[in-house]
Amino acid sequence: MAIGIMGPGLGARPQDLSCAFELGRLVAQNGWVLLTGGREMGVMEAASKGAKSADGLTIGILPGDSTIGCSDFVDVAIVTGMGSARNNINVLSSDVVIACGMGAGTVSEIALAIKANKPVILVNATDSAIAFFQSLVPSNITIATNAQEAINQAKLLVNSLS
Amino acid sequence: MAIGIMGPGLGARPQDLSCAFELGRLVAQNGWVLLTGGREMGVMEAASKGAKSADGLTIGILPGDSTIGCSDFVDVAIVTGMGSARNNINVLSSDVVIACGMGAGTVSEIALAIKANKPVILVNATDSAIAFFQSLVPSNITIATNAQEAINQAKLLVNSLS
Amino acid sequence: MAIGIMGPGLGARPQDLSCAFELGRLVAQNGWVLLTGGREMGVMEAASKGAKSADGLTIGILPGDSTIGCSDFVDVAIVTGMGSARNNINVLSSDVVIACGMGAGTVSEIALAIKANKPVILVNATDSAIAFFQSLVPSNITIATNAQEAINQAKLLVNSLS
Amino acid sequence: MAIGIMGPGLGARPQDLSCAFELGRLVAQNGWVLLTGGREMGVMEAASKGAKSADGLTIGILPGDSTIGCSDFVDVAIVTGMGSARNNINVLSSDVVIACGMGAGTVSEIALAIKANKPVILVNATDSAIAFFQSLVPSNITIATNAQEAINQAKLLVNSLS
Repeated sequence: MAIGIMGPGLGARPQDLSCAFELGRLVAQNGWVLLTGGREMGVMEAASKGAKSADGLTIGILPGDSTIGCSDFVDVAIVTGMGSARNNINVLSSDVVIACGMGAGTVSEIALAIKANKPVILVNATDSAIAFFQSLVPSNITIATNAQEAINQAKLLVNSLS
Repeated sequence: MAIGIMGPGLGARPQDLSCAFELGRLVAQNGWVLLTGGREMGVMEAASKGAKSADGLTIGILPGDSTIGCSDFVDVAIVTGMGSARNNINVLSSDVVIACGMGAGTVSEIALAIKANKPVILVNATDSAIAFFQSLVPSNITIATNAQEAINQAKLLVNSLS
Repeated sequence: MAIGIMGPGLGARPQDLSCAFELGRLVAQNGWVLLTGGREMGVMEAASKGAKSADGLTIGILPGDSTIGCSDFVDVAIVTGMGSARNNINVLSSDVVIACGMGAGTVSEIALAIKANKPVILVNATDSAIAFFQSLVPSNITIATNAQEAINQAKLLVNSLS
Repeated sequence: MAIGIMGPGLGARPQDLSCAFELGRLVAQNGWVLLTGGREMGVMEAASKGAKSADGLTIGILPGDSTIGCSDFVDVAIVTGMGSARNNINVLSSDVVIACGMGAGTVSEIALAIKANKPVILVNATDSAIAFFQSLVPSNITIATNAQEAINQAKLLVNSLS
């Protein structure tokens, strides 16, 4: 199983970073592969660092055409050279998508995940984000209030997939 | 100038279709190229049909790997074979993005447009969509209440670009 | 009908440029849309210039994420932001692919065209290129010795497609 | 280090399959990550099987939009949903590209690797392929006569990269 953790880069807040670290750690502890956007910043890096703290395997799907800017906590870098279009690869390659915090890239990933019929868990989302995505398509979206709760929901989803 | 008109396919409401037709017609009347997702349904087809009613040039950026499912109102089909990742090409190729109605694909296009620093005009958007996108990044988003108003705003944006 | 003219950028030889101009001109005279890689150099630019000399419609599928570096002879720029992966879009969007001269990018486009079952016409190709591609898959490849002959063969292929 | 092993799917010959298995095994024994096109056939599957026989880590970059058709010997599937355009991701993500046997997809990968300035090792290549690629760009291409020799050359290249 591969769990994608998506979230803002430069715009990540402290609570997004700590939540992402915890999510990454729990993904690894469950024996899942962690998949992120791979860059050395924000939720991507924090989640990868968390997964490595628990000896997990981390995959980073990079937007650029080289590994420049790749997080040191990424084990395998996939170099797409296709900018934000790689966001679709992030979600297609994840069995469950967890969005931690919110930014324009994150919104595109949530939307592409919905389009691809992937289950999405929102954590650290604002009220207006929750209201919007639940009005868009209630069935794919689950809301979690912290990392542990998000992982518990991911576990239920993973079990229903296998 | 190329104006991208994005919006739902199967899920388009009657008011989205009539608005999209009018948007396409006005895009053509302004001498702009119309760019859509190219499929034979929803906002994409209605906008292309509107543009052809005013002798405009219509480009369709298709998700599939052939022209099957392409609207008859598309003059030039760009066959990407990359599914929803083509949504990023839609916005990168548009000088202004007008979102008419809302669906998961539309949300991804609005978000990718914001990410790429493209101006976005929302028309026929729900209150929760407006609240969400304006909280995400107020400066790129303009709200219009009908096709003519959206085109007036596009004209201002186009003038500021050239 | 859209005819793709592919060939080297910086590495184009004088005979490739004059052949590409002539190919573009003849594509336009036949009422076909010209599709190229869109950049302001080499075979792409020469073909687009040739097509515009005969009032054709020219589409450029750009590798970068903006229109910087786009040829002035391109009417509609498709901004892919995906580097050389856009070569697959070039061939999927062309009904017939004409390769004029040879470079690494051109080789990838010929190969992707074969993979996608698109007819390919080689003009200005070296003996080793002809020997190689004909050994790879003889049925998709036609050899032409000049622009007019390539266009004659394209006409036969276009007629067999429609 | 990630080593990409590319080669034909359905069209692979028995000697391509045995060579690919051996290449995959040696990649794993050297502690490198194996990267392939991920499908359950041909050189992709044989290389992945070889790497797993030596407990290596295998990544598969799939062309489709789901894991259907993925080799059982792939540990991590990257689902691109972009067809043959994913060939560019294969080469961008590989530090060294080894082409084992030849097919249209393989040719596109060699060409895209040259374009991206990646070192390419050809093994089991025909004389016309060797002649063609060496005339195209002699400096990026190394010829090997068997799997062990290809890996020896990869080792030299990897050392020069780090």
